[in-house]
Amino acid sequence: MIAHKVLFVVLDGVSDRPCDALNGLTPLEAAKTPVLDRIAAEGICGIMDSVAPGIRPGSDTSHLALLGYPPQEYYTGRGPLEAEGTGIHMTAGMIGFRCNFATVDENGLITDRRAGRISGTAPLAEAIREEVDLSALGVEFRFESGAGHRAALALSGVGLGDKVSSNDPKKEGVKPPAVKPCTDDPADKKTAEACNEFIRQSSKVLYDHPLNIKRMEEGLPPANLLLIRGAGKMGKFPQFSERYGLSGSVISAATLITGIGKVVGLEHIPVPGTTGSVNSDLNAKVKAALGELERKDFVLMNIKGADEAGHDGKGIQKRDFIEVIDAALEPLLDLPDTLLVICADHSTPCSIKDHSADPVPVVIRGPGVRVDRNTRFDEISCAEGGLHRIRGLDLMPIVLDLINKSHKYGA
Amino acid sequence: MIAHKVLFVVLDGVSDRPCDALNGLTPLEAAKTPVLDRIAAEGICGIMDSVAPGIRPGSDTSHLALLGYPPQEYYTGRGPLEAEGTGIHMTAGMIGFRCNFATVDENGLITDRRAGRISGTAPLAEAIREEVDLSALGVEFRFESGAGHRAALALSGVGLGDKVSSNDPKKEGVKPPAVKPCTDDPADKKTAEACNEFIRQSSKVLYDHPLNIKRMEEGLPPANLLLIRGAGKMGKFPQFSERYGLSGSVISAATLITGIGKVVGLEHIPVPGTTGSVNSDLNAKVKAALGELERKDFVLMNIKGADEAGHDGKGIQKRDFIEVIDAALEPLLDLPDTLLVICADHSTPCSIKDHSADPVPVVIRGPGVRVDRNTRFDEISCAEGGLHRIRGLDLMPIVLDLINKSHKYGA
Repeated sequence: MIAHKVLFVVLDGVSDRPCDALNGLTPLEAAKTPVLDRIAAEGICGIMDSVAPGIRPGSDTSHLALLGYPPQEYYTGRGPLEAEGTGIHMTAGMIGFRCNFATVDENGLITDRRAGRISGTAPLAEAIREEVDLSALGVEFRFESGAGHRAALALSGVGLGDKVSSNDPKKEGVKPPAVKPCTDDPADKKTAEACNEFIRQSSKVLYDHPLNIKRMEEGLPPANLLLIRGAGKMGKFPQFSERYGLSGSVISAATLITGIGKVVGLEHIPVPGTTGSVNSDLNAKVKAALGELERKDFVLMNIKGADEAGHDGKGIQKRDFIEVIDAALEPLLDLPDTLLVICADHSTPCSIKDHSADPVPVVIRGPGVRVDRNTRFDEISCAEGGLHRIRGLDLMPIVLDLINKSHKYGA
Repeated sequence: MIAHKVLFVVLDGVSDRPCDALNGLTPLEAAKTPVLDRIAAEGICGIMDSVAPGIRPGSDTSHLALLGYPPQEYYTGRGPLEAEGTGIHMTAGMIGFRCNFATVDENGLITDRRAGRISGTAPLAEAIREEVDLSALGVEFRFESGAGHRAALALSGVGLGDKVSSNDPKKEGVKPPAVKPCTDDPADKKTAEACNEFIRQSSKVLYDHPLNIKRMEEGLPPANLLLIRGAGKMGKFPQFSERYGLSGSVISAATLITGIGKVVGLEHIPVPGTTGSVNSDLNAKVKAALGELERKDFVLMNIKGADEAGHDGKGIQKRDFIEVIDAALEPLLDLPDTLLVICADHSTPCSIKDHSADPVPVVIRGPGVRVDRNTRFDEISCAEGGLHRIRGLDLMPIVLDLINKSHKYGA
């Protein structure tokens, strides 16, 4: 009657508010979800404030909380987590950034912040790694291309700060501003100088790169500038295996979630065909999760598409994708020896096209769980469940207790 | 689908415990409240610990919490808030007090702590302002008469403390004690001296005042002594508009609530005919609130009478007044573009004739709100609602999220 394995299924941004397009229902309420409903019926349900009531979580702060790492203590900006997710091994003290390949015209004005949503930028990243040199500033760098127009940068060296601005003006038709230190701290000044030098040298490399010359010949916008943002200093993360005595894997097509999993010591399992969008191969993802559960104690699986539909304000698409998710989760119904946790990381209401603080539904199902009377997995029904209203940071302790990995407090 | 305005309706002390006089129902359960029930049915309900479970809040600490100002951080006694509500503009560092006009006999014994519930004391206050002089002590004072026998005093000057006792013995037939410093701090000693000198000089002014001579001729107790209490040092309050980006008004006949509203930067809108009691003109109050909502983002409306009935232990009167409130709130049913929050600030059970820590019912109704299945506004029904059990300090973050004035924590 005690599970030995744990599967967290995070349906990113799946929860919502009443949608006009769905006659006042939320997408979860409107969707036909026999699998999720059966899990709800067989488990204990509740609602959850990922961070705290009224606090709008990012996917980063919420996932940290769900994994038991208080974001107030461990969150130092998105940059280092994205960098880790993009493939740079971040160690404590490194400064991480998210990057976009972008296009500037001959006057230096940004004409496309995503370089025509370019993909296949690995050769550009390789050229940058070979030719850019920041050693005169006492700085080393790592640079990796990511999905589409995305990339990541990390700086290391003595005395680097992370309080620096971005060169991304967030709009087109203007020149990118210089990266500036946000404080008088020489460490921030040094980082800003290194950023500006990196941007200057990488622009030169990109300008002459054959891949860009070819793009221009084809009438495509060249990737001739890097926009860098989200600066943060990598912290020390106690490793999941030491903290909880559990081995674990992360399955996610979103680099941010991958990065969070990796910094806490989960092994990243890439799954071909998964995209982090509504066209992702969810069956492959679920199959990969089942495979990981055979060799690991804990698996975090993030499914991103519903969040995207919420950000786009598409209630019907969100409802329909929830039905796709539901079908893909069907193999989880027969999962032996496993505590299954299904929740969102935050709500992404179609009505506001952004994250909101509305609590998310959560269900825990598996051996030993007290089964409540709720039989539907949606925001309104789960609020009537036996878990009541918990916080993201409550989840891991509850799970550890249920799998008998808790220690008694007192005697 | 997003409200731009917010109306807080605080039904002061409306919640209760089972009442013998109501066959074991609470006054809210016993009352016929079609308007409140419809709002509950159209909104999301819950129960709320204004401060924390088991903590009996005052109206001051609870209102501070509801407005998002942690009372642990901002509450420095009732005096400065009453003084602000009575019309003294309090600035940081001033020492505020509540005062009663009282009656002493020729032997100096208190015969009436409220001077026969005198009213119309403005001429007395004016005489005190003209004739009392504390400059020899290096202290300036402000003094304003309030409703009935009430008044407020504020002291300012270098090195004034607020840890001083009251000269109110809380009973009649005894001499008023001197105000004493509660610590060895010279600042508290200086304040105590200024208080005693103020009491001495004001007694002289009052003794000879024509209004009191006339009262004595009419056989009424003269207002010939000031009882002062509730000393507190005015703090710095971040203004509501800067804290939340919302303009706001406060509508309340209770000076304490008015004072709290004013210190956080809400504009006080006086409404003729409102009394803070069960005979208040609630229709005028609701009309004023609707008017304010046309020009402001946020309105706090406090309705006091139910609290009074609770303090008096009158369950049937409380139930009946709740029905009067319910009828008066009817115009709120058609409020456009507004997030409506209805709650109590604390419970005032008839059985104990004082505030209690029992959580209060709360409903939030408006665009974007997830509607739960609860259809009744009372203590027991709201406990089954979708908000579950929140704290007073959760309310503003939840409201700001619903009106889209929140900032994301993380990315």
